[in-house]
Amino acid sequence: MALKLYLEAINKEIAEHKYGNHPQELYDPLEYIMSLGGKRLRPALTLMSANLWLYNWQKAVKPALAVEVFHNFTLMHDDIMDQAPIRRGQATVHEKWDTNTAILSGDVMLVAAYELLAEVEDANFKHVIKRFNRTAAEVCEGQQLDMMFASKENVSKEEYIEMIRLKTSVLLGFALELGAIVAGADQESVDLLYSIGVNLGLGFQVKDDILDVYGEQAKVGKQIGGDIIENKKTWLMIDALEKAEEFGVVKELNTWLQKETFDNTEKVTAVKAIFDTIGVKQDAEQAMHGYFNLAFDSLKKLNVSEDKKQVIRSFAEDLLNREH
Amino acid sequence: MALKLYLEAINKEIAEHKYGNHPQELYDPLEYIMSLGGKRLRPALTLMSANLWLYNWQKAVKPALAVEVFHNFTLMHDDIMDQAPIRRGQATVHEKWDTNTAILSGDVMLVAAYELLAEVEDANFKHVIKRFNRTAAEVCEGQQLDMMFASKENVSKEEYIEMIRLKTSVLLGFALELGAIVAGADQESVDLLYSIGVNLGLGFQVKDDILDVYGEQAKVGKQIGGDIIENKKTWLMIDALEKAEEFGVVKELNTWLQKETFDNTEKVTAVKAIFDTIGVKQDAEQAMHGYFNLAFDSLKKLNVSEDKKQVIRSFAEDLLNREH
Repeated sequence: MALKLYLEAINKEIAEHKYGNHPQELYDPLEYIMSLGGKRLRPALTLMSANLWLYNWQKAVKPALAVEVFHNFTLMHDDIMDQAPIRRGQATVHEKWDTNTAILSGDVMLVAAYELLAEVEDANFKHVIKRFNRTAAEVCEGQQLDMMFASKENVSKEEYIEMIRLKTSVLLGFALELGAIVAGADQESVDLLYSIGVNLGLGFQVKDDILDVYGEQAKVGKQIGGDIIENKKTWLMIDALEKAEEFGVVKELNTWLQKETFDNTEKVTAVKAIFDTIGVKQDAEQAMHGYFNLAFDSLKKLNVSEDKKQVIRSFAEDLLNREH
Repeated sequence: MALKLYLEAINKEIAEHKYGNHPQELYDPLEYIMSLGGKRLRPALTLMSANLWLYNWQKAVKPALAVEVFHNFTLMHDDIMDQAPIRRGQATVHEKWDTNTAILSGDVMLVAAYELLAEVEDANFKHVIKRFNRTAAEVCEGQQLDMMFASKENVSKEEYIEMIRLKTSVLLGFALELGAIVAGADQESVDLLYSIGVNLGLGFQVKDDILDVYGEQAKVGKQIGGDIIENKKTWLMIDALEKAEEFGVVKELNTWLQKETFDNTEKVTAVKAIFDTIGVKQDAEQAMHGYFNLAFDSLKKLNVSEDKKQVIRSFAEDLLNREH
């Protein structure tokens, strides 16, 4: 089955699903944020996974939408916490309405995700809810760690990976796992799909960090070096800080990190030069390939026919090779 | 079984339950708000209800705690929205920490309620989750209506009752319903218990509105007339506004509602005098008794022995006769 068909089914469901209307003011922000688009990676993963076993993968569409609704709930609340004015080129909910609306509509959106999961048939329902509960709590844990890291002096690579595992990767893991559970797959397969999702998530995030520094502006669609300008503790920056002494660039790197006024382009160019001296890009690519390889290894172990695996393999390769 | 034993079991579970610790900073606000006390009405209702059929009512303790955790989640988020500095005599979470913490710890608290519900046995689990989903969404809907009413010109009694039904009463209904489902009761009994809870909730709220104006300060423990000072659209004020013309006090009432500076005691005394002219207290008491009577009627219809019903009847009578 082609990815395109999964995405069509998801977008149709997003366009048609009614969350509630009593009062409409509570539900408008849900429909708004869901209408802003996005890659719909997570629900696509659920359908891909379900279709490994299920001919009738359509029965996974509502559970798949639950994952996308949960993801957008986290965006709605994260945007308040980050005071982000823009999401996907449009005003964020707390900007378009206000913070109270973004809190309360976010809350009901989390409940809406559980309502969509109630479409899972009885035999698999408790398993799904328990796994979703754990995942949802972990995503909150990851967001908490992310906020704490912003003011933490030293963040190790292990800590960073643990943070992105929780904040981002476990939901990709759950998305794939969910499809397998809904399809009635055996526990070994369910576990392998979870592992594929988590490792794709980690690889995806390291790739994101690489693109922010080494991507082409025209393709990435946002200012290159944004993370450097903000002193963000990305995988690359943590690597640079860990190796700066070995390469004799501690003082230079710290000078740029501590400068309060600077020309953006000048800072990006200078820090990038330090990264190049250390070989940060190669380190990051090696780490990224490591995670993608773990995902491909799990995919290999999965006991389904090669042609069925192909849609997941291509999807993973697209994530690996993407330039934006 | 005495109420005291239920409350002991709940307080023990609250003291011992571990929500998570990774990172502790995310979970500290949960433990804090749960430690602030409160009447624990809702989990007590769940245990009372379960004990109508179940000798071993202890198996309902974790589900009962889920209701209390959910209730405290709503308080944590409502306090942000209301900019409330104090909750149960202590600093609110967004004051003691900050707004971001109160948002995120609240989110994980909602998930924690679902985690506790996962203790319900498989046969009843989906029923419980579906009813909880609906209830949780309705509580958000009630909070949204409450916020909208603050700036709405005319609020009718029907609208007000619908708002408090959603914001407060359905959770009391669910608390009783949950105990019955966990105990494996028949659907007719489950529905009767829900109806008891909802009507107790409505009666409870009208009683609250009465006590705010007509309670004894020493017993109520807060300033009498707070709702009048803030022009809050309570059951009493709505009744007064509806009948003001009939009693020729429209101008007088509006003068007090529109005054921007006033002496608090003077306003409370004057508005109370208008209420007395109209007979607002009698109207409110009649409405309150109406709801309590509906609850007692449903209790009468319930097919369990009289001595088992007694704990719920006494509990309801205590709510009806309370002076604070």
